[in-house]
Amino acid sequence: MRELLLIGIGTGNPRHLTQEAIDAIHHADVVLLPHKGRGKSELAQVRLGILQTLGIAPEKLAHFDMPLRRQTGDDYGQQVQEWHAAIARRWADTLAAHTAATPGAAAPHRVALLVWGDPALYDSTLRIAALLGLAPAQVRVVPGITAMQVLCSAHGIALNDVGAPFQVTTGRQLVEGGWPAGVDTLIVMLDGQRAYEQVTEPEADIFWGAYLGMPQQLLMSGPLQAVKPHISAERARAREQHGWIMDIYLLRRPRTTPPGDAAD
Amino acid sequence: MRELLLIGIGTGNPRHLTQEAIDAIHHADVVLLPHKGRGKSELAQVRLGILQTLGIAPEKLAHFDMPLRRQTGDDYGQQVQEWHAAIARRWADTLAAHTAATPGAAAPHRVALLVWGDPALYDSTLRIAALLGLAPAQVRVVPGITAMQVLCSAHGIALNDVGAPFQVTTGRQLVEGGWPAGVDTLIVMLDGQRAYEQVTEPEADIFWGAYLGMPQQLLMSGPLQAVKPHISAERARAREQHGWIMDIYLLRRPRTTPPGDAAD
Ligand SMILES: C[S@@+](CC[C@H](N)C(=O)[O-])C[C@H]1O[C@@H](n2cnc3c(N)ncnc32)[C@H](O)[C@@H]1O
Ligand SMILES: C[S@@+](CC[C@H](N)C(=O)[O-])C[C@H]1O[C@@H](n2cnc3c(N)ncnc32)[C@H](O)[C@@H]1O
Repeated sequence: MRELLLIGIGTGNPRHLTQEAIDAIHHADVVLLPHKGRGKSELAQVRLGILQTLGIAPEKLAHFDMPLRRQTGDDYGQQVQEWHAAIARRWADTLAAHTAATPGAAAPHRVALLVWGDPALYDSTLRIAALLGLAPAQVRVVPGITAMQVLCSAHGIALNDVGAPFQVTTGRQLVEGGWPAGVDTLIVMLDGQRAYEQVTEPEADIFWGAYLGMPQQLLMSGPLQAVKPHISAERARAREQHGWIMDIYLLRRPRTTPPGDAAD
Repeated sequence: MRELLLIGIGTGNPRHLTQEAIDAIHHADVVLLPHKGRGKSELAQVRLGILQTLGIAPEKLAHFDMPLRRQTGDDYGQQVQEWHAAIARRWADTLAAHTAATPGAAAPHRVALLVWGDPALYDSTLRIAALLGLAPAQVRVVPGITAMQVLCSAHGIALNDVGAPFQVTTGRQLVEGGWPAGVDTLIVMLDGQRAYEQVTEPEADIFWGAYLGMPQQLLMSGPLQAVKPHISAERARAREQHGWIMDIYLLRRPRTTPPGDAAD
């Protein structure tokens, strides 16, 4: 392999693909396509739909099943490391099998992975790629539209207050650490535990979105304390209906930080 | 005006445009094109280049000069409000003049503004649009690739450590508040004052980029204390050469937050 392309594809809406991402997909000799269990086959369908729309030949696709992460023990860091190593091996094995199964094919020079959203945001693909022993210049990252951008655009809101900071965090961090000092806007991702239910800020607003960019997109917003039961009910209903859910939200409380003199 | 389209165009590389952004530009009756002084005409050139490449007729373009913000007095919040109101009036006046100058033209139904990066990130266009009295459903935001994503992709790094939060902030906030507690990764934007020079964290790394996505792109990275003089020298040189600069950086110190059990 001479080049590994990690291509951000946005979070469900194929129209969010950039020109650069489209070029990179066409440029690849082989596209590695992961399949996950847990009813998330719709995400695999989005990837396949993009490849079909772009006219990528099925022979270029190398499908593989994602290894599972060991979930026993409290050695979380170790579990993640083992898991990443297993994924890197699976990539290599899948490429070898793909070459062997394609008559007359040489090992692919350019291998692409389609990454949900942007490869830089809460995604391990870059860390797994680092285990392959490629030189930094051989790994090319193509940015993609993230879930937080689609959330803001759907609600017609800005990420930040004028000149103010914001923090991007996970449900787990929010539950464990509470609302961080010095910042009045939080974007919360990877929240399977409904951390917003535990946020007691009386005056915070929430802007919530699920399945963003997809046909079943859901949006809800308003004063956090008033709408949180409604979000939880809707979340449970949608999860039941579709068998899976991906959601994200922005929390904003009245400004406590001094206005920054940073003209935008 | 029936619809106002705020279209994120990325930060200099026209290949970062999404399919949705391209459709939205074609869909508009008129594109409002701001011109700023201060040597930033290259940014206006990027916008014009995109419109030309897409084959948008020159008659569809309504050019205007950006009003200046009053910079006297310490009433910063008031200055920003006045400035936003002046920009909203300028948009309206420019559209009226454009209609009057176009024989047989009706007032445009769909008006587009091309916003640098993503309209949600340190950009006032949404706030100015709110002054026009349109209904929320009449304002459509199209996400675009941000400077922070191009920074990460150029350096081949992730925004976040596994399961860890990160904060996006301005040079001013960093100078005034120092490194915020509870977060080990900072993205610093709008930093004309070289706030990184004042950061004393002994073990932090910096990943810096200027003119990202543009032909003159510059990158530098390494241990903050060792490379900061080099960045400042390069920054001064480039600013002198081009007459302007836009830069952004990511600071990361060794992890102080507990690992989060958030599988990505
Ligand atoms: C493993 S992270 C990947 C994020 C992705 N790289 C990005 O740039 O958005 C998955 C989390 O992203 C958010 N997410 C991703 N896609 C989403 C969507 N279509 N709707 C809502 N949230 C989404 C959710 O918070 C989910 O838990
Ligand atoms: C007014 S903000 C606009 C940000 C924009 N909306 C975005 O999504 O990136 C301008 C700041 O963005 C960053 N920036 C924008 N374009 C950039 C580029 N091409 N290279 C480096 N930094 C850039 C700089 O920190 C600059 O001070």
